[in-house]
Amino acid sequence: MNNQAVFNIAEICARHGITDVVLSPGSRSAPLTLAFARHPAYRGKLRVVPDERAAAFIGLGIAQATRRTVVLLCTSGTAGLNYAPAVAEAFFQQIPLLILTADRPPEWIDQLDGQTIRQRNLYGAHAKAAFDFPADTTHPDAKWHAERIINEAINLTKAGPAGPVQVNVPLREPFYPKADEAVVYEQDVKIIQEDHANAVLPPAEILDLRQQLRVAGRVLVVAGQQASNPSLTAALYEFMTARRVPVVADTIANLSEIPAGHGHDVFLAGLAKGPKEALQPDLLITFGQSLISKSLKLFLRDAAPAQHWHIQAVGAVADTFRSLTRTVRVQPATFFQQLSSFETKDYGPAEGSNPIPSTAPEQGSSMYSSKALDLGSIPSATNAAPVTWPRADAAAAAFLADFFAADDQPFNEFTAFRHALGALVDGTALHLANSMAVRYANILGLPADRQIEVFANRGTSGIDGCNSTAVGGALAQPARPVVLLTGDVAFFYDRNAFWHNYPTPNLRVVVFNNHGGGIFRMIDGPRQQPELEEFFETHQALTAENLCRDFNLRYFPVASFAELAAALPVFFAAEGGAAVLEVFTDSKTNAAFFEEYRAAVKAAFA
Amino acid sequence: MNNQAVFNIAEICARHGITDVVLSPGSRSAPLTLAFARHPAYRGKLRVVPDERAAAFIGLGIAQATRRTVVLLCTSGTAGLNYAPAVAEAFFQQIPLLILTADRPPEWIDQLDGQTIRQRNLYGAHAKAAFDFPADTTHPDAKWHAERIINEAINLTKAGPAGPVQVNVPLREPFYPKADEAVVYEQDVKIIQEDHANAVLPPAEILDLRQQLRVAGRVLVVAGQQASNPSLTAALYEFMTARRVPVVADTIANLSEIPAGHGHDVFLAGLAKGPKEALQPDLLITFGQSLISKSLKLFLRDAAPAQHWHIQAVGAVADTFRSLTRTVRVQPATFFQQLSSFETKDYGPAEGSNPIPSTAPEQGSSMYSSKALDLGSIPSATNAAPVTWPRADAAAAAFLADFFAADDQPFNEFTAFRHALGALVDGTALHLANSMAVRYANILGLPADRQIEVFANRGTSGIDGCNSTAVGGALAQPARPVVLLTGDVAFFYDRNAFWHNYPTPNLRVVVFNNHGGGIFRMIDGPRQQPELEEFFETHQALTAENLCRDFNLRYFPVASFAELAAALPVFFAAEGGAAVLEVFTDSKTNAAFFEEYRAAVKAAFA
Repeated sequence: MNNQAVFNIAEICARHGITDVVLSPGSRSAPLTLAFARHPAYRGKLRVVPDERAAAFIGLGIAQATRRTVVLLCTSGTAGLNYAPAVAEAFFQQIPLLILTADRPPEWIDQLDGQTIRQRNLYGAHAKAAFDFPADTTHPDAKWHAERIINEAINLTKAGPAGPVQVNVPLREPFYPKADEAVVYEQDVKIIQEDHANAVLPPAEILDLRQQLRVAGRVLVVAGQQASNPSLTAALYEFMTARRVPVVADTIANLSEIPAGHGHDVFLAGLAKGPKEALQPDLLITFGQSLISKSLKLFLRDAAPAQHWHIQAVGAVADTFRSLTRTVRVQPATFFQQLSSFETKDYGPAEGSNPIPSTAPEQGSSMYSSKALDLGSIPSATNAAPVTWPRADAAAAAFLADFFAADDQPFNEFTAFRHALGALVDGTALHLANSMAVRYANILGLPADRQIEVFANRGTSGIDGCNSTAVGGALAQPARPVVLLTGDVAFFYDRNAFWHNYPTPNLRVVVFNNHGGGIFRMIDGPRQQPELEEFFETHQALTAENLCRDFNLRYFPVASFAELAAALPVFFAAEGGAAVLEVFTDSKTNAAFFEEYRAAVKAAFA
Repeated sequence: MNNQAVFNIAEICARHGITDVVLSPGSRSAPLTLAFARHPAYRGKLRVVPDERAAAFIGLGIAQATRRTVVLLCTSGTAGLNYAPAVAEAFFQQIPLLILTADRPPEWIDQLDGQTIRQRNLYGAHAKAAFDFPADTTHPDAKWHAERIINEAINLTKAGPAGPVQVNVPLREPFYPKADEAVVYEQDVKIIQEDHANAVLPPAEILDLRQQLRVAGRVLVVAGQQASNPSLTAALYEFMTARRVPVVADTIANLSEIPAGHGHDVFLAGLAKGPKEALQPDLLITFGQSLISKSLKLFLRDAAPAQHWHIQAVGAVADTFRSLTRTVRVQPATFFQQLSSFETKDYGPAEGSNPIPSTAPEQGSSMYSSKALDLGSIPSATNAAPVTWPRADAAAAAFLADFFAADDQPFNEFTAFRHALGALVDGTALHLANSMAVRYANILGLPADRQIEVFANRGTSGIDGCNSTAVGGALAQPARPVVLLTGDVAFFYDRNAFWHNYPTPNLRVVVFNNHGGGIFRMIDGPRQQPELEEFFETHQALTAENLCRDFNLRYFPVASFAELAAALPVFFAAEGGAAVLEVFTDSKTNAAFFEEYRAAVKAAFA
């Protein structure tokens, strides 16, 4: 059969346990489409999404939810370029995607044929690798080559750090089997399985790290973005309890199950220099990817801790706070497991380390008691009543409760956002769009004890695929409530997320519509410029109503607290199918209210 | 002032005569935004388009219409990646775009900050060049460097072949001038003007080409895609008349003002091998970019002419028909001017050329007389009544008139398309979307004597920016009727083309809505597969009605010839503002009718 090597791609993918394929229609890609469409493993599993930009983000959303490699499949030409934003997001968020781009054979590139661009290494620095599938498979070595490439590509998508890999597949006509021609999947295809060991730190290094930890002075753990990870969560909990070390985590770190501090985005914006200094660590331990909180980032850059360890098994390490001194190449869960227990006797300080024993663990305050934990904290360098991370966290929580209790608030998106967060049901997969939604959530924190898992495209922080990523999540986990909180610009930008034929009855989208890029009215800089309205905020007139008509989404428009309160339980109820709740607010009111919030933070924490 | 070098970019662009800037809102890009927003040359000329994919195609549409470099300006992160489809189209269509991507300074790349990707050389093989604007401009050489880069980039966008050039601009905070800080544009900025000479062929080469032409036997000129070019049109007309050489041109070659043949997409699909051979040239002369007609491409590949000259001043030359033997590095207009006149006496054959004089010009038939031209044609090698290009063209025109005269046609998009073409008003800028629209137009030809200029994104033949390109065209030439003929998939794919605040009262969009990728039902291969409906045609349920509501477009839905006939004059009337005419047809009916057409072609020309 013509294109047998191409049909075998589906077989190899199936043997590697890949279950999800998102394709966009095309002619050049037909052999690939048929390879998957006719393979028994993919019957009923292929999804067709016409807009490749949306298709790629939907694939990314599926991979986020399933933690498995997802295949993206498109035709030649600019189709693959429309994948580029999602590919970059997958690269930085470390999501495994296998991208199959159909192409003309190499001799036909740049020959003015239709839908022909230069597809080799199409994603440049944003793919882990780019393979050229052989155009000719007549030579005996070609079967080995073709099959090896697919194995290598799949294994690379998953090898840490996971990410996107392109295989460019040149295809010659005929693209289609004849009517009486059976499609065969060869069973002797080459499979290269890749096993990943769980590395552990050698004893000598553990001893050294323990010793360093003991003498380091004030220790702080900061968690960046990461997928929900129960074994890491448990190890971290053990570590923070045993070592009495405070843990600070943004909402996207998925650590709401343990008493990690989430109030920093509130109090760090308000604290004066002195009390802030009292929180500065001598040893900063970080893991995970990016932080949302600009206050936290600036705080840590100012803090300039003497030591900063970043725990990351593989891949390039960022020096986010300009203080990095040590990279520990092990999984964070392993690190915290290996470091959590106190030794009754250590083998003395490692050479060159400070031999003065720290009394920090014993002096830990017990203010952070919401979980009945006697959690250690960073004692103040002064002898006044110390500002500690747990105290500040508790104060932030109390502040927020108090601030939002005021019943004279105008209808505004910040408060509405808090109501929406509060109404989330147990087990929700929560997608937070860029740009204001993820920031509001990080300030407000998640409701406790609801097992909410958080997703956000913070690899590149784009607004371009927030809907699609949530749609992918909803498709991947149909039994789970999937909620997207988003603003109007991100929502309408990615409206083609809904343009396909797959129902997502578990999806709920809350659109905070202030008719423009409201964030620009809230951040210093643009809001002081005469160009604010025209060139930054950029008024847009759309409402979601027509979009909901187009895509058969139930539509709940609200413009007051009373309407919002009435709508939320109906909207979040499991029955009824996919729905959009559109919260109309006024951009100026929102900005004024947020300014009030900022002033109140300053007053409360200064 | 901070970022003075960035403000100077606007000054340099203005001095180079750049008038159009399309920007998408962002924070990192604020200094660039302000640089243009406050520059007197750009007051009221900046356009803000939130979806960068649409923004870039709108910019491309403006550049197509104005034939001048357009600036695209976006923030950091995936914003620039959303430009990629339009950048590739601009690269292959040779449209000058200056792309300014705001970035973080180099030391902050890969440090987990928001909206930070690897933006250097973001467009890889699809940009003519990528420049790194200096992050620091404190050194005395930096002003020279920064200004030189912008000059080089602008000049490169225009130097043949024109195309997209990226300048990545790293920006440090503060982004915004203080309230009392005046923005200054330095008047001593460096300007490097670039002049392009009109090269002419040296006398010796002219002589050789003339001699070759005389002895070549059957000569055929084929024109690929090119912008309307009166001097080339005139020179070609002179050449074809003087030399009695037939010219074949696809619709996108913009040669409808001269009697170039446009019927080939009809008759070449029908002619049997023998008559086809009678049309085969011995010397093929081509210029311009791609062809639409697959029949013509296959014919020319089969023809395997002994000589194929491609006329192109600069840039890589494609060997589209696998027969290229000579590349003539001069502007096509110059070539035809220099080659058109007969010399009474030449200096004898160039060494090695065939000395047998051809009698071809004298034997030209005069069948192509619609313009009262005694136009030469390729005589048949046989001595039977020859099939000639002009005769075949005339036969194709007669065939089409006859075929569409039948009054028992079901309502179908091919016929509806013909009616829409026929109703175009004088001077229309006609945008033809991929994929069926441009094919229908190429078969049907344009109404004569209406000065219709044709645009189509055939650089990459994508469906991703057809709306936006037409919107750009409409914005650039507000006094001119701009019409887009498109299918439903291309139309809804690029719906964000309309998501901005700039009215386009001169824009008319005809959407041929068959609720899916109707092309797949028409081409051999997919239409025979059981997967046709699900994975190729892919039913989509949208109509344009809600979109028209969203974007304040007048909406004309039609589903019969009577409705279409009634709607067309109202729809195309100059008053009333932007409008969408949605032609609802049934995909199966369309495919059956197109099959009838094919059968009729075969019957008529076999």
